[in-house]
Order: sequence, then C-alpha cells, then structure tokens
Amino acid sequence: MAVGLTAPTHLSAVAGIRLGMASAGFKQTARPDLVLIEMAAGSSCAAVFTLNAFCAAPVVLAREHLADKSPRYLLINSGNANAGTGKPGYAVAQASCEAVAGQAGCDATEVLPFSTGVIGELLPIEKLQAAVPQAYANLDEDNWVQAARAIMTTDTLAKGISEQCTIDGKTITVTGMAKGSGMIRPNMATMLAYIATDAAVAQPVLDVCLRKAVNASFNRITVDSDTSTNDACVLMASGAAGNTLIDDEDTDAAVTLFACIEKVCAFLAQAIIRDGEGATKFMTIEVEGGADAAECEAVAYTIAHSPLVKTAFFASDPNWGRILAAVGRAGLANLDLDAIIIHLDDVCIVRDGGRASDYTEQAGQRVMKQAEITVKVVLGRGNASTRVWTCDLSYDYVRINAEYRS
Amino acid sequence: MAVGLTAPTHLSAVAGIRLGMASAGFKQTARPDLVLIEMAAGSSCAAVFTLNAFCAAPVVLAREHLADKSPRYLLINSGNANAGTGKPGYAVAQASCEAVAGQAGCDATEVLPFSTGVIGELLPIEKLQAAVPQAYANLDEDNWVQAARAIMTTDTLAKGISEQCTIDGKTITVTGMAKGSGMIRPNMATMLAYIATDAAVAQPVLDVCLRKAVNASFNRITVDSDTSTNDACVLMASGAAGNTLIDDEDTDAAVTLFACIEKVCAFLAQAIIRDGEGATKFMTIEVEGGADAAECEAVAYTIAHSPLVKTAFFASDPNWGRILAAVGRAGLANLDLDAIIIHLDDVCIVRDGGRASDYTEQAGQRVMKQAEITVKVVLGRGNASTRVWTCDLSYDYVRINAEYRS
Repeated sequence: MAVGLTAPTHLSAVAGIRLGMASAGFKQTARPDLVLIEMAAGSSCAAVFTLNAFCAAPVVLAREHLADKSPRYLLINSGNANAGTGKPGYAVAQASCEAVAGQAGCDATEVLPFSTGVIGELLPIEKLQAAVPQAYANLDEDNWVQAARAIMTTDTLAKGISEQCTIDGKTITVTGMAKGSGMIRPNMATMLAYIATDAAVAQPVLDVCLRKAVNASFNRITVDSDTSTNDACVLMASGAAGNTLIDDEDTDAAVTLFACIEKVCAFLAQAIIRDGEGATKFMTIEVEGGADAAECEAVAYTIAHSPLVKTAFFASDPNWGRILAAVGRAGLANLDLDAIIIHLDDVCIVRDGGRASDYTEQAGQRVMKQAEITVKVVLGRGNASTRVWTCDLSYDYVRINAEYRS
Repeated sequence: MAVGLTAPTHLSAVAGIRLGMASAGFKQTARPDLVLIEMAAGSSCAAVFTLNAFCAAPVVLAREHLADKSPRYLLINSGNANAGTGKPGYAVAQASCEAVAGQAGCDATEVLPFSTGVIGELLPIEKLQAAVPQAYANLDEDNWVQAARAIMTTDTLAKGISEQCTIDGKTITVTGMAKGSGMIRPNMATMLAYIATDAAVAQPVLDVCLRKAVNASFNRITVDSDTSTNDACVLMASGAAGNTLIDDEDTDAAVTLFACIEKVCAFLAQAIIRDGEGATKFMTIEVEGGADAAECEAVAYTIAHSPLVKTAFFASDPNWGRILAAVGRAGLANLDLDAIIIHLDDVCIVRDGGRASDYTEQAGQRVMKQAEITVKVVLGRGNASTRVWTCDLSYDYVRINAEYRS
C-alpha cells in the first residue's frame, strides 16, 4: 500500500524518445520485463551510477560505453540484477548490448545495459536475445506508462510523471519514470530512473543538471540504508522541441529546464519512498541549524535509519524519546542539548534538554496518526540544513524481504 | 525466544557484595523493579557509560559522583529510563541517591543511580523513596539471580554468569549480570551490566580492566544500531578474597583476573544478542585482512545493521548477494573485489568477484537453517581484523517495538 501515491495513467510523450517492451521471462509471471529505449540521432545523454563497490556487471559496462560514445539505446531488464556474477556476468551484459546492436544496426558501445532484480544469478542471455526483436518492433513514443510497469520488481505501483515548461517560445516536455522500493539508500543515483526531455541541451550541461537534480532528490531518500549494486539514473535530451541549444548552465533557459527536471526527480524520489517496502507512513526529516551539511545529514540519516524510530512511526506511537536518542547518537561533537528543538509537524516535542513543557500526549498522537509526517530538528549551532525522505518499518517490510526469492 | 541461552538458576555470591530487591511499581506488573547493590567498605569500582549525547539524568549524575568519591551503593531501577527529562529528571536522580544515603547512613555522592525503561517520562520519585527501605532490608550476597531478573525490561530471560580463577592461592569469584534486548549498539558500554569480584584490585587497574573487557565484548554487539541513552557497565572489586592487592596491570595476577572478567563480559554481551528483540538467529560477523581496525568495523557493522541481510537470515534464505552488497557499500576506498572471500560458516559463497564456483544453493541452505551462523569476510588488503555479534530482524522485532509503551 503506497502512501499518497497512485500509478500514472498517462505520461506525456517526449519527441525523439521511443520505448518498447517485451516479455523475456526473467520473472515467474508473464508480464513485460524488458524495456528498450531509443534516443533519436543527435540526442545527448547523462547518467550517474551506484557508488557500491560491488557494482553490477551492467553498471560497469554502461560506464565504459558512456565514456566511449553518446548512447542511442538503453536496454533495461527487471527480474535479474546480473550483480555479483563476475566475468561471466560481464560477458552476458556485453552480449545483451550486441543483441540490440544487431537488431538496430548500431554499435554495441552505443547501447547502455541496466538490470534489476535478484543479485547473484547470471542473466539468462538466450531469453534476452529472443525478446529484443519484440521490444524493438514495439518502439513508440507513447509507451512510457507500460515501460514504467515493466521495470518494476517489488514495487506495488508504477512511478512516473510529466512536467512542461516554455523555452524560446517552445513547449518543453520532461517525462520521467523510476522503480525501486527496497535496498534504497541511493548514493549518487538511485535504483533505475529514466528522465527524458525534448529540449536541446549540450551534454556537459545535461550532466551538471542531472547531478544537481539527483543530489536534491534521489540522494535524499532512504528506505532501509541498503545501497543497491545496480542504482542508475539517466537523463536524455532529444532536442526535438526546436529550442536553441542550451550550452551554458547559467542561462535563463538552463535555469528553467533545471527547475522542471528537478521537479520530476523530486516526485520520482518521493514516489520510491511512498512505495517503500511495507511503507505505511511517509516521513520528511528536516535538520536545520547545523554547523555544516555533513552533520545535518548525519542527524537526518541516523533518525531515518533507526529501526526504533521507524517502528514507532509504524505504530503511530509518539515515542519521541527514540528520536531524541537518535539525535544523541549521530556522532556530533559538543552538542548543546539545551539548544536543540524537535518538532513533529506543528507539535514541539523537545526543548530545553527534555520534553517540551507544553507537549501533550494527545497532540503527539494526533500527528502520529497522519500518513505523512515531518520531523524537524533544529540543532542551534549554525546555518546549514538538509532534508531527507524515508518511510516506516512495518511487518510487511520483514515479510517482503524474508519471502523475496522464496 | 532467546537463541542458545537459558536463564541462570544459580550465580555465585561474591564476598563483600550484597544485593537487595524491591517492587517500586514502575512497571505495570508487581515484579521487583528496583535493585540496590552494596559494596563493602574498601571496595574499588570502575564504570563506563553511554556516549549518546542525550545521556540520561542518572548517567550524568553517576559520572559526577564517580569522579567525586568511591561509590558504596548502586541503585538500579527498570521500567523508567529517566532520560530526556531535563532538569527535573536530574533533580529526581539526586533525590534517589539521597533516599539511599538516608537509609544507609552514607553520603549521597557515594551512590550511583541507574535507570532503564521508557525514555521521556519523569521517574516517579515517591514510588522509589517508598521502596528503598525494602531493598536495603533485603541486602544479601546470594541475591544475584533475583537481581538479574529485576533489571529486565523487554528481556525474555535474565542474564548472568559466574567464573572463578586462582590468584595467590585464593579462589577468586567473578559474577556478572546484564540486561538489554533492544536499542542495542553500545558505544563504550552497554545497557546496564554489573560485574563483581572479590579480588583486591586497585581502582586504576580495575578501570583498565573494565575498558579492555568492554571493548572486546559489549562494544562488539548490535541488535538494531540504536545506542541507548542509559548504557552503563560497572565493575566492582571487594577485596574480600584476601589476595595481594593487584595494583599493576602487567602482573600475572592481573592477567589471570582480566581473562576471567573478559570471559564474563563476553558471555553477557553475547547473551544480550541471543535475547535480542525478536531474535531467531545468533550471527557472528568476522572481518579479516583489513588495512586497519576501522575499516574492518565498517564492513562488520554494515553487514550487521543491514535490514536486508538481517531479514534474509530470519528467512533462512542464503541470499548472499545482500551480504556482498553490504560489503560494497561500507565505504572502503579502492576495494579489490577479486580479492574478497566471503564464507557462511564452512561454505564459501563469494570468490573472484562473484559467486564462488563451487557454491551450491543446498550448501548455503544447510548453513542458513542453523540457529548460529558465522559470516566471515576476508578483505585481502592487510592484517587487521574484528568480530561483532548480532541477530536477525524478525516480525517479532517490529511487533515488540511497535507495541512497546502501548
């Protein structure tokens, strides 16, 4: 049950970007599990990948291909992560790119591979090779909703959004989709997100835009502190809208486009948390008044990862002492306890080194019953701040992850 | 259901150390929830406390009293942590020491207070004052088992052990008890552990002994990464055994005693994990071949805290990719993936950058069905090593922490 999130029924086509699906049979069900995305010639593309040292074979290969050529195709499969598969996994990832190249008449290095699903099992390449022609035959600009469904694993809902802005008098469309529900603590990127625009953008500017947007969105979420081996986020720009090429990040056009893309990334990042494994609550953790961003993040993530805080939210229990204990163990030196103020939405829970004198259990209970709650911690020792999004820890998180694979 | 642990039916008395219990009514049940420990005049005492910045009022006061005088009494209550209670909480902790001083005819600064239970509620001092005389009247050297029961909160079993060694031809007894089950990631100490010996030991040597023993035991366990506001560990030495005073940590006598005390601490630390909230599995995480101890700990705790690893163990699922992903996100620079070897007990699961070629699902399944499992990670980049103990993450962990307080 996702928190305040419904699946998209319509996503705007992005001129120059076509998507095709196929059922390769990586999953036990017959639903589509393979997506091919084609970028029109002349498109630019930027991507960021997981910083997990054990990154998957497709991540290694996608990085190499991206450094070599501007990509024309993205090939995405769900149901198998092709991670922890060593040299055989790398060879299979290469073969998957060659399958697309043979079909599309491009170079294998113009294809970026992406995989998501179980770690440690070799991707069955014959199934993939057999399904690529169907995905290629299905390529269509109007396939975003179906593609968003095909990349799901433990997601309960497809995740996607479209936004528009105007640049040079041209309507610019930005459409994005993402998947991810568990093993979510993205580090420089998240579990498979694809954003496309028809704006004309030079690759270096697109790269800056993606890193900025990811840093304010996918790098600010956590379900369970587990950084995936396969995280990747790709931003494509086809240029089909006909605007003047954006080749400077400081222009008005760039600022307008960046804002639109950041909006899409923030929606998708939040959507992953709203559909976090077993989530019943959507929590925003705001930390203000820190000496620097690092200590704000330390406090925010210590709260967001605390199993005791997360289970208290699941129980709608205003057991605010657990939040206080999490702040206290975040590792900040010389913390002035008396200066710290903690709010649950509009209710002050901690002030003057202990429970706020005007706090009542009823007020705390009222907020905790909500599906969406903001925890705000004011450290009172500087001007830095940060914000992260997370969800609660429920029976269903344990069930989903105990049953997964079995 | 604790893993491989039963409650002690007998604990050896330690000459010079008496314990008394009373039911103060901090808990909803009528069972004893107050313990008074008396050290004979001339005893020495060492203690370590939580490093959580939001440490509880009794921890603040106990630190002050310990710096001032050698303590004669420890007063321990369960059912209420008196943490996050600000200045009123501190005043109540002072009043609790005064209640003992009035009864025993000692100075209030010779009393160390300890509290465990719900955070954020002021300790009802009248209940404590009313119960102190009973605890004092009950003081007896043979009360260790009852005292170990009285300090329990969510513990399902009392935890205690006795060991003996010989020094100067005298039989030396070491008896220890501990409580703790959740909010367990001790940092310099753990959730209430008390160890006593009748050996004669100078305080500075006792202090060194405690820090060494704690570092190898209580500082090596984690249930849920949540460091408590009330952690404390106390080591008492009455001198009643009649050995020559141990005033040098490098003597044979000190080495013999240290080994005995370390054995007691290791048992108690493991007992806390075996009785970890909802635990069905006891896991030892060994990391070898690291460049330094810090990176070994980073890897060990990343595995031990990973919700995905913990739920896989709960499910007895050899989903070893989750262990590999945890190693990969532990933040070690320049990790040579091909050098890493990971074992589940005697089964090699990762070698040469991926699944070990001789690994079989059956072999992994056989190990995962055990109640006690060792995960060994060899990093292949140095000679440092570490070992931590943890448990799995089950439905019951969520249930216990969602229901606690309600």
